[in-house]
Amino acid sequence: MLLRLLFLLLLVIGPQAGAWADDGYRLWLKYDQLPEAGLRKEWQAQTNSIRIDQNVGPTLQTAAHELQLGLQGLLGRPVPVGAAPGGKGHLRLRVAPDAALGQEGYRISYQNGGLEITGSTETAVLYGCFALLRQVQTGQRPAGLRLSSQPRIRYRLLNHWDNPNGTVERGYAGSSIWKWQELPEVLDPRYQDYARANASIGLNGVVLNNVNASARYLTPEYLRKVAAVAGVLRPYGQRVYLSVLWAAPKVIGGLKTSDPLEPQVQAWWKARTDEIYKTIPDFGGFLVKANSEGEPGPQDYSRTHADGANMLARALGQHDGIVMWRAFVYKAGSGDRFRQAYEEFQPLDGQFADKVLVQVKNGPIDFQAREPFHPLFGAMPRTPLVLEVQLTQEYLGFATHAVYLGPLIKECLEADTHRQGPGSTVAKVVDGTLEKHSLSGIAGVANIGSDRNWTGHPVGQANWYAFGRLAWDHTLRSEDLAREWTRMTLTREPAAVAAILPLLNQSRAIYVRYTTPLGLHHIMGQSLHYGPEPWLSQSARPDWTSVYYHKADAQGLGFDRTATGSDALALYAPGARHLWANPATCPPDYLLWFHHVGWGQPLSTGRTLWDELTTRYYSGTDSVRWMQQQWELAKPALDPQLYADVAARLRVQHREAQWWRDACVLYFQEFARRPLPPTLTPPARPLAEIKELVDIYQLR
Amino acid sequence: MLLRLLFLLLLVIGPQAGAWADDGYRLWLKYDQLPEAGLRKEWQAQTNSIRIDQNVGPTLQTAAHELQLGLQGLLGRPVPVGAAPGGKGHLRLRVAPDAALGQEGYRISYQNGGLEITGSTETAVLYGCFALLRQVQTGQRPAGLRLSSQPRIRYRLLNHWDNPNGTVERGYAGSSIWKWQELPEVLDPRYQDYARANASIGLNGVVLNNVNASARYLTPEYLRKVAAVAGVLRPYGQRVYLSVLWAAPKVIGGLKTSDPLEPQVQAWWKARTDEIYKTIPDFGGFLVKANSEGEPGPQDYSRTHADGANMLARALGQHDGIVMWRAFVYKAGSGDRFRQAYEEFQPLDGQFADKVLVQVKNGPIDFQAREPFHPLFGAMPRTPLVLEVQLTQEYLGFATHAVYLGPLIKECLEADTHRQGPGSTVAKVVDGTLEKHSLSGIAGVANIGSDRNWTGHPVGQANWYAFGRLAWDHTLRSEDLAREWTRMTLTREPAAVAAILPLLNQSRAIYVRYTTPLGLHHIMGQSLHYGPEPWLSQSARPDWTSVYYHKADAQGLGFDRTATGSDALALYAPGARHLWANPATCPPDYLLWFHHVGWGQPLSTGRTLWDELTTRYYSGTDSVRWMQQQWELAKPALDPQLYADVAARLRVQHREAQWWRDACVLYFQEFARRPLPPTLTPPARPLAEIKELVDIYQLR
Repeated sequence: MLLRLLFLLLLVIGPQAGAWADDGYRLWLKYDQLPEAGLRKEWQAQTNSIRIDQNVGPTLQTAAHELQLGLQGLLGRPVPVGAAPGGKGHLRLRVAPDAALGQEGYRISYQNGGLEITGSTETAVLYGCFALLRQVQTGQRPAGLRLSSQPRIRYRLLNHWDNPNGTVERGYAGSSIWKWQELPEVLDPRYQDYARANASIGLNGVVLNNVNASARYLTPEYLRKVAAVAGVLRPYGQRVYLSVLWAAPKVIGGLKTSDPLEPQVQAWWKARTDEIYKTIPDFGGFLVKANSEGEPGPQDYSRTHADGANMLARALGQHDGIVMWRAFVYKAGSGDRFRQAYEEFQPLDGQFADKVLVQVKNGPIDFQAREPFHPLFGAMPRTPLVLEVQLTQEYLGFATHAVYLGPLIKECLEADTHRQGPGSTVAKVVDGTLEKHSLSGIAGVANIGSDRNWTGHPVGQANWYAFGRLAWDHTLRSEDLAREWTRMTLTREPAAVAAILPLLNQSRAIYVRYTTPLGLHHIMGQSLHYGPEPWLSQSARPDWTSVYYHKADAQGLGFDRTATGSDALALYAPGARHLWANPATCPPDYLLWFHHVGWGQPLSTGRTLWDELTTRYYSGTDSVRWMQQQWELAKPALDPQLYADVAARLRVQHREAQWWRDACVLYFQEFARRPLPPTLTPPARPLAEIKELVDIYQLR
Repeated sequence: MLLRLLFLLLLVIGPQAGAWADDGYRLWLKYDQLPEAGLRKEWQAQTNSIRIDQNVGPTLQTAAHELQLGLQGLLGRPVPVGAAPGGKGHLRLRVAPDAALGQEGYRISYQNGGLEITGSTETAVLYGCFALLRQVQTGQRPAGLRLSSQPRIRYRLLNHWDNPNGTVERGYAGSSIWKWQELPEVLDPRYQDYARANASIGLNGVVLNNVNASARYLTPEYLRKVAAVAGVLRPYGQRVYLSVLWAAPKVIGGLKTSDPLEPQVQAWWKARTDEIYKTIPDFGGFLVKANSEGEPGPQDYSRTHADGANMLARALGQHDGIVMWRAFVYKAGSGDRFRQAYEEFQPLDGQFADKVLVQVKNGPIDFQAREPFHPLFGAMPRTPLVLEVQLTQEYLGFATHAVYLGPLIKECLEADTHRQGPGSTVAKVVDGTLEKHSLSGIAGVANIGSDRNWTGHPVGQANWYAFGRLAWDHTLRSEDLAREWTRMTLTREPAAVAAILPLLNQSRAIYVRYTTPLGLHHIMGQSLHYGPEPWLSQSARPDWTSVYYHKADAQGLGFDRTATGSDALALYAPGARHLWANPATCPPDYLLWFHHVGWGQPLSTGRTLWDELTTRYYSGTDSVRWMQQQWELAKPALDPQLYADVAARLRVQHREAQWWRDACVLYFQEFARRPLPPTLTPPARPLAEIKELVDIYQLR
């Protein structure tokens, strides 16, 4: 009878199978029952109930609910929530000011025989709850658990490049998750799940809209919509921020100017800002892309970036908000683009108001697969700098290439600026410890869209995850985060994890190899930024072409940025510069970033430039095969739908790796006029065929 | 013990609750267990197993699998599929040529005591399986079941206006479901669910890409992708079609011309077409938007639409494919836009090749909330005409207004062209019976996107559903389809159904009232086609403004299309013309389509034009309140998430109905210079405020 009932139950469930397949929507928050009965028992013994004080606020209620949801799933039995003190076998959530933990840090420990999660604020306890769930989910034991953590960076934000019409600039995972047309009345359940995901990894804010900003968001009509989103995000500790259009006073304010020194412009922004805070009391502040790529800005009125940023800071006044002013600027025709943001911003150091942070991309060009760290890091000691990294894979294969970005982000964070002696890492600039700033920030350009699994490529989830965790604590190891994510999201089966981890950890290096080895950069398909187009020589601006960057000629390859060339190297502190200055000792990964190297020049690897270059294109491509094999090894432990999805994407990736390899090898060969090393099989197709293929992807 | 086990089971299921809420993904294919035990037993007794012949093809296997899935869910017990003959208590699927049923018709009947679904082809049996499931799902009894049906129209297609970059022109439900970047390797599971949905309502084909077409799709690179989609759709009886860019021979063929009379152009299309059929043997054919809204076409070479269409027909040669050539053309500055498609296409009647169908929108302007039927219907007796209707609500409130389109589609189908005497309905023109055509077609511009529930607004699903069912059998009643859809998708609880049905059935009339009553048309926000903008008087073309259409002046309102005006009325047969010719007898719904009427003119309703106009704007807006109340009545029987979603959208709809009402009443009052009828409360806001609001939605 019992068995028959079960059978019927399963049958009734059966037809809804679609809802049960692992479609990726739950991200890493998979509260499936732990397979180890013993481990479940151990945790059950410590979590007979969740105890909170009476009359707590919405964030602590959210924390208790999330914990309940997670523990019930992981441990397979009910966990009531009650307003009662803690005690042996019960789990208590408690807000108590603790200077050692700051505003957002949490502590998990035993108090009077019972587990307790404490923090100075409700949000801190929420972070602690997710930390505890992570312990359970990754199979840690409860005995002797003692854990405390607090974020090293204060503003930990996702930047959405989402447009009001629902498209996402450089988005590859469907449309925007924000449904502006339907807001404020319709609250997509997805908003809440998004907030949960961000909170679970320690993020605390969201810039909702594209830096190429619409003025719509500053109107009352849209502020009501923004407020509705903010209302859903608030209990999860996520504040909302807006990108602003510099010309807004003209476009929607009816003024004739946007000059930051004009009193009427200042008054307009002040009034707008007050209005925003009336609607959204915990509004986070403004992100600004000004005088960059055609966007308006204070320079339209012969004012500086500092004039603009400081005016907005004054508009914020006593409100608890900040201005993040982007340093991503480059003027056409003013020499090496590598130098331009530095030249424009470094002289402004010391001129920015207290609430202003300058937001700097990880590298000097634009989110290439590998860049040297941006020379502004360490060079503006009197200005807090936000590190901006890109999670959406604009230049890294969209949603069809598996590229785990942990290593890229860490590479930048750990780079040593040498500005205050050895050990002056980018991380210490960004977290404020090097230059004693109280404000600090980090921003990830979101890779999130309406796709069911949020990120298109399932591995994209790992990038969202690793970014959040590193934003919280940049000392975490990229490999450890890959392991955490894999075990929470994909499988805890040891052999499968062992197969997947090297795939993730090496994926970025492999991508670099088959697209831009040895320090090549910006040789991708124009506008689209997809596929290879090293032959691109005509564009609206010279620094939008490929030849501008690779400078291939009969002699050799690479951009001379030493004193004999653009001398961009001089922008770095001597200690940092030293690493790259000598072509003989420059690490091969950065060689062509800084040197024009002869085709026949022997490198430190023992091969000539040409042989090394082509060998890397081939070995990078072959490595995608290796990634496929690793994924196959994990197959028995994976959800079939997820397995098939990634396996198919790896097939695309291999096809496109060959595309890159053949394109670049054949194109550069026209300059090098050398045969491939004998171990490599020449491409089977002519370059003309590849050029046609690239053109197809750029058709209307 | 049993109860405890159940409790635990439910707990384990609990945390995945998100997957259980009714998120709309399953559409009307909800195979939840029938609540009536008796009814389940009756059906169980007839469906102990599903029997098919050995060695059947993929479509019959698909049919058996779908039937199994559905019956197991609805009846709550396993239904094995076996290769065996039928028999009492078993359900047999059988392919047997049957001239009475045609190629796609099915019959469900008892044979030798057992239920049997038969048809001439596997696809026919598949349609029969969905028909049987519909019987079960809507609570019909099996006793004495005897049912047969065949489609009245041969080509029943969805047209996707989806672009290669993933955007959807006039799409309001997220991004395109086609992931071109990931194809052909990655096959989103959604493709299959899409095909199921189409097959379940009797559609048999899909134009994958926007009529503003990219040439990409004709390249080998993209044909591989198209073939991959076709492979998923094929077992569900769905053929794929492509929209083609007329200039493709130049853009991707390297030719200097696209002149259809040039032998090299003809040869290019022939070779391309042969290549397509090599890749996709059951390819359906081409859809063409030529010399329309800036698209290239044969007129660029002084050739006619017939020259162009016939050239493509010749390229198709012996392949089983068709050309659908769109009649949606209007030249700037050549008189009343209402007349232009007629003037260009009617003279070509008789000149089109056998494989060509001309595709005509339901009305002469462009998918307005109500239009008179297109004058081309009945006026091209020697040419099969495809009826094109728009399911995506470009002019009908996007995804925030509940507008059930069954009445709109039926209104057009039942319109009488009088071309061969009374009863010469558009339906009979379209299904080919009036003019004895063997080819016939109907196309719905899809309202489908990546949103979880496919259509953004849940009611949008009803439009997809009703279109498919009407495409199969245009004699079905709109109200019956609304009932079918509601009971399959939302609830079978009688009181709730009784509350929802009038909401659906009256929704389109209500939308007309608060946006474009009495035959007003094309007065919406420019470019965006959202919100009111009757004051729009400047645009790139006069017929893109609003004043072109409403012609408000001090005397009155409306477009005189009688002999004293543009005389567009003359394009209709006398019998049809008669209905609209006299302003005194013209039905109020069409009045301003054809007449310029004085503000003080008394109408058949007993009110003056001004009073009737304003009364309709107000009563239409009030009716949205009534829709909200109806929805509340149904609440107890609805899934909470679905209830909340629609309730919120109705709040948006009411807010925007007020927006339309206030905008139009205040604007037209500037001409009428009359007070509102005393029962109506004047808008609380000035027109200037509304104009600002409209501007906001048109900002970058």
